[in-house]
Amino acid sequence: MAQLIADKRDVEFVLHEQFNAASLTRFERYATCNKKTIDLIVSEARNLAIKEILPLQKISDEGCKFDSGKVTVPKAYHKVLASYLGGEWLGMTDDPEWGGQGLPKLVSMAANEYFYGACNSFMLFHLLSHGAARLVENFGTEEQKNIYLANMLSGKWSGTMLLTEPDAGSDVGALTTSARKNPDGTYSITGNKIFISGGEHDMVENIIHPVLARIEGAPSGTKGISLFLVPKFRVNSDGSLGEFNDVVCTGIEHKLGLHGNCTCSLTLGGGGNCIGTLLGQENKGMSAMFVMMNEARQMVGLQGFANASAAYLYALNYARQRIQTKHITASANSVSVPIIQHPDVRRQLMIMKAHVEGMRSLIYYGGLCQDIEKCGETEEERTEAEEMVEVLTPIIKGYITDKAFEMCSHGIQVYGGYGFIEEYPIAQLLRDSRIFMLYEGTNGIQSIDLVGRKMGMKKGKPFLAFIDEITKTVRRAKEMEATQELAKELGEYLDTYMETALTLSKNISSDKMLNAYTYTHPFLESTGDLSIAWMLLWRASIAAQKIGSGKKDEAFYKGQIDTARFFIRYVIPVAKGRLAAISNCDGAAIEMAEDGFGGK
Amino acid sequence: MAQLIADKRDVEFVLHEQFNAASLTRFERYATCNKKTIDLIVSEARNLAIKEILPLQKISDEGCKFDSGKVTVPKAYHKVLASYLGGEWLGMTDDPEWGGQGLPKLVSMAANEYFYGACNSFMLFHLLSHGAARLVENFGTEEQKNIYLANMLSGKWSGTMLLTEPDAGSDVGALTTSARKNPDGTYSITGNKIFISGGEHDMVENIIHPVLARIEGAPSGTKGISLFLVPKFRVNSDGSLGEFNDVVCTGIEHKLGLHGNCTCSLTLGGGGNCIGTLLGQENKGMSAMFVMMNEARQMVGLQGFANASAAYLYALNYARQRIQTKHITASANSVSVPIIQHPDVRRQLMIMKAHVEGMRSLIYYGGLCQDIEKCGETEEERTEAEEMVEVLTPIIKGYITDKAFEMCSHGIQVYGGYGFIEEYPIAQLLRDSRIFMLYEGTNGIQSIDLVGRKMGMKKGKPFLAFIDEITKTVRRAKEMEATQELAKELGEYLDTYMETALTLSKNISSDKMLNAYTYTHPFLESTGDLSIAWMLLWRASIAAQKIGSGKKDEAFYKGQIDTARFFIRYVIPVAKGRLAAISNCDGAAIEMAEDGFGGK
Repeated sequence: MAQLIADKRDVEFVLHEQFNAASLTRFERYATCNKKTIDLIVSEARNLAIKEILPLQKISDEGCKFDSGKVTVPKAYHKVLASYLGGEWLGMTDDPEWGGQGLPKLVSMAANEYFYGACNSFMLFHLLSHGAARLVENFGTEEQKNIYLANMLSGKWSGTMLLTEPDAGSDVGALTTSARKNPDGTYSITGNKIFISGGEHDMVENIIHPVLARIEGAPSGTKGISLFLVPKFRVNSDGSLGEFNDVVCTGIEHKLGLHGNCTCSLTLGGGGNCIGTLLGQENKGMSAMFVMMNEARQMVGLQGFANASAAYLYALNYARQRIQTKHITASANSVSVPIIQHPDVRRQLMIMKAHVEGMRSLIYYGGLCQDIEKCGETEEERTEAEEMVEVLTPIIKGYITDKAFEMCSHGIQVYGGYGFIEEYPIAQLLRDSRIFMLYEGTNGIQSIDLVGRKMGMKKGKPFLAFIDEITKTVRRAKEMEATQELAKELGEYLDTYMETALTLSKNISSDKMLNAYTYTHPFLESTGDLSIAWMLLWRASIAAQKIGSGKKDEAFYKGQIDTARFFIRYVIPVAKGRLAAISNCDGAAIEMAEDGFGGK
Repeated sequence: MAQLIADKRDVEFVLHEQFNAASLTRFERYATCNKKTIDLIVSEARNLAIKEILPLQKISDEGCKFDSGKVTVPKAYHKVLASYLGGEWLGMTDDPEWGGQGLPKLVSMAANEYFYGACNSFMLFHLLSHGAARLVENFGTEEQKNIYLANMLSGKWSGTMLLTEPDAGSDVGALTTSARKNPDGTYSITGNKIFISGGEHDMVENIIHPVLARIEGAPSGTKGISLFLVPKFRVNSDGSLGEFNDVVCTGIEHKLGLHGNCTCSLTLGGGGNCIGTLLGQENKGMSAMFVMMNEARQMVGLQGFANASAAYLYALNYARQRIQTKHITASANSVSVPIIQHPDVRRQLMIMKAHVEGMRSLIYYGGLCQDIEKCGETEEERTEAEEMVEVLTPIIKGYITDKAFEMCSHGIQVYGGYGFIEEYPIAQLLRDSRIFMLYEGTNGIQSIDLVGRKMGMKKGKPFLAFIDEITKTVRRAKEMEATQELAKELGEYLDTYMETALTLSKNISSDKMLNAYTYTHPFLESTGDLSIAWMLLWRASIAAQKIGSGKKDEAFYKGQIDTARFFIRYVIPVAKGRLAAISNCDGAAIEMAEDGFGGK
């Protein structure tokens, strides 16, 4: 039977054969999380995703409704929310102290792949609720935690994140929402926020808004920004709900996709009656956000990846069923064949498979690193894992969401004309996926983060450690006959990549600086290509050892080698060409006079 | 003032400075079409496009309505249709004998760029009407022409094209619509057609459907297909309308984009009462379609290009107005700047500019070749032009529509989060553009056409002539200081490209044939990149001669050189990497076992 959302066998391969998830039982926190438990959890997530969340996808596309300050989500959400929260999925990786399940991030990636791939619009509510809860957990006072945290982690109350304003998007520091301290230590908040996912809706009794605002008299720019906790309804010290807190939804956006998650404009304190409490320290709002950023950005990467994975399975299934045109080598009177037999369709399916599987490994690896960051036995181990997370984050967010959109477009192409029809599933996946390249920091910003911040941090140690891990995979793959040629080819790319990274770094600190900053995105892309190739070669090395043992998985394992081979010989040569352009660092885009762009 | 749809200065540059449109007056057909006339025509088209057609764009997105077999277009279409037809734009390139204006294709490209970029949904009705009229003109009997042609070319009646059926998409030969000859020489038609753009609507009193069907007893496959003329209402010999012809619209599609053009399912002869007349010869329907194909495919290329051009101007204008974040070299207390000053935004604008301008030149050049094909003084001249059209067609259709979609996506990225909001114009341009990669032959089919048909036709003469034209441009550019380095670089790419083309051709005729067919699309992309670079270098060579003469267009001309430089140093190295993969011709995608794709 055709699979949905994610390839079950491949999920298991990555969890167990590539990353040996059960070995996390070596950490006390995950001591009970053995293979059997992991399989049970992922299987339950898969069931919930396919049976309850996936049916929301079409419904979600009809959108949320706005009327006089109230937002109504699709009715079908309510029942599925109850199932999702009842299964305690929201806090699956959180501390049991606050009602979490204490599961590894690695395992949560598999569960979330199913959930998000089933319906990203529905899941985005929970992504934000969870992020808000984590802010309270990390920066809240004991009182704030006692009042809010259990209800947020259980999903009884949802959460959001209020950063953006009409003139403060990428430039958060330009925000104008203000906070005035009251005698009782609370703050009166006044301002307008836009693009607030889940900013108002009817699924829960209260919504908790972490809000970035500037305390009156604080410095301009990011240094004067503080974080506040602003509930929709005030919460009494016994946890009961108090009066409405003057957070008014003034409208929702009409968007290209993700219609089933309301993007709200909120006015805070329009009636002079919006009260918040400081979360963390005064003027430290930005650094609080940064602490949560890696996690949030990796989740956005997962959002894109999950749609790409779903698109691949739909396209694959369609290509196996759709009969059209005889085979290219067949004689005139032959019958038509399933389109998966046509070379150009195979090309597109291979592009999708290679990217999707490489992304899956990279995202799960990011989860694994977060687990070691948390539980590693030595500080060194934890620090190294944290540093790996720092390097991986812009790649997972920036590269994966770029490619996810491309993969959905390939999916449409495999469907032919039907791909353009909304009755088929991929058009929506494409539309929904376009936002992932924009929010949580545009992919241009991700590329600047990679080149301007991550590459050079701690004198390049984290970046070199990342390269070192790739080198190790290449070295291991060179030891096996089935992968040695591919390893050699990837090793050559890696050498050129490193030379290019060095050149780019030098250019960034030279008078070619402006030119160099027009190559950060191409460099991110080439880094992402490297990362996918790394993961696929890693997979192929494992698969190579299992081929020929007569297992039922023979086609799967051989497929791993073909997939790595495809990516290294089809995508990597293109990436290599791109490296040449980056090294050359031509300045046409900078030297062009502004009038030269025309249009006036 | 910010320009809309197309950059006026650039349109003029391509028409007059690059292609010397007025020189077409050397042909009798175009004798009166001097520069002044051309400018007047384009200016009128621009006015109509901006003032009347562009306001339809948002409206068109709300879609057509279907109710009980009737389709209603947006009400606002009617008045604009009257203006468009009143201006005799539909037949602007057609023979005056049938009411056409007899203008050059080259000039029509400029007019159409404005029209299609203003509202592709509205214009697609006319594209099809015109194509249907041309079929009648080319293959109709005198009687058919007398009955139909004037009314079709004037737009009084609209036209369509009925090819696709649920199981006959790319494989037209699989169609099952049948035709039975009646004693009076007409045919009774029975069948179901889908994906019929403008198949039913309320803008005109009659719709004329050219229909592909199989006469009972005719051979299977494409060899047994005939073309019929099937009106919605029968037409009496005096041109008056007769009874309803049993062509019933059973529904319209709910699509990703192009909502303002109804995509209809039609049932012909469901009541046993659908009568058609043979258009052309029995069993020659496919070859009739092929005659019209180059023109139709180039128009689809123009559809994509026009949206990309509009997206560029919107993004450029937004980037000039949107203030966000201080400049990367500025000190801490500096003010924020228009985002066009940020390197990564410039990179994206340059990508858009370079592609859009290169596409414009390539499409206009295609038009020019069609003019010479028609009017050339010697048969040799006409044949050479025709052959150039053959080679250019899959590039213009396949490459340009692929890139147009990408450019719209870049446009969204320049807008940041606002790009995802439907109140801003680019989301719709992106959605509308996705179909161009699919219809009139998917871009996979275009790539097979280029490699499998066009490269080798007439022992490679047309393809080599195409290369020869590029070589000439490179040679001329080498003679000028401002362009000689770029010419050298493009020349090197051209050499590698030719080696790759040779290798690919050999592989196509060898036992690597299947592998080779997984590289036709990458080869099309590399050919398209070459074509854009060719056009941009050509433009730069012209501009180089005009710099420093103190003209007011200094920024424009310098911009031409920077644009060519950007493309040759930013895009071409990537294309070169792709050529390496094509030459290598690895077979992973072919050798992968079908089960290896997973998903079961």
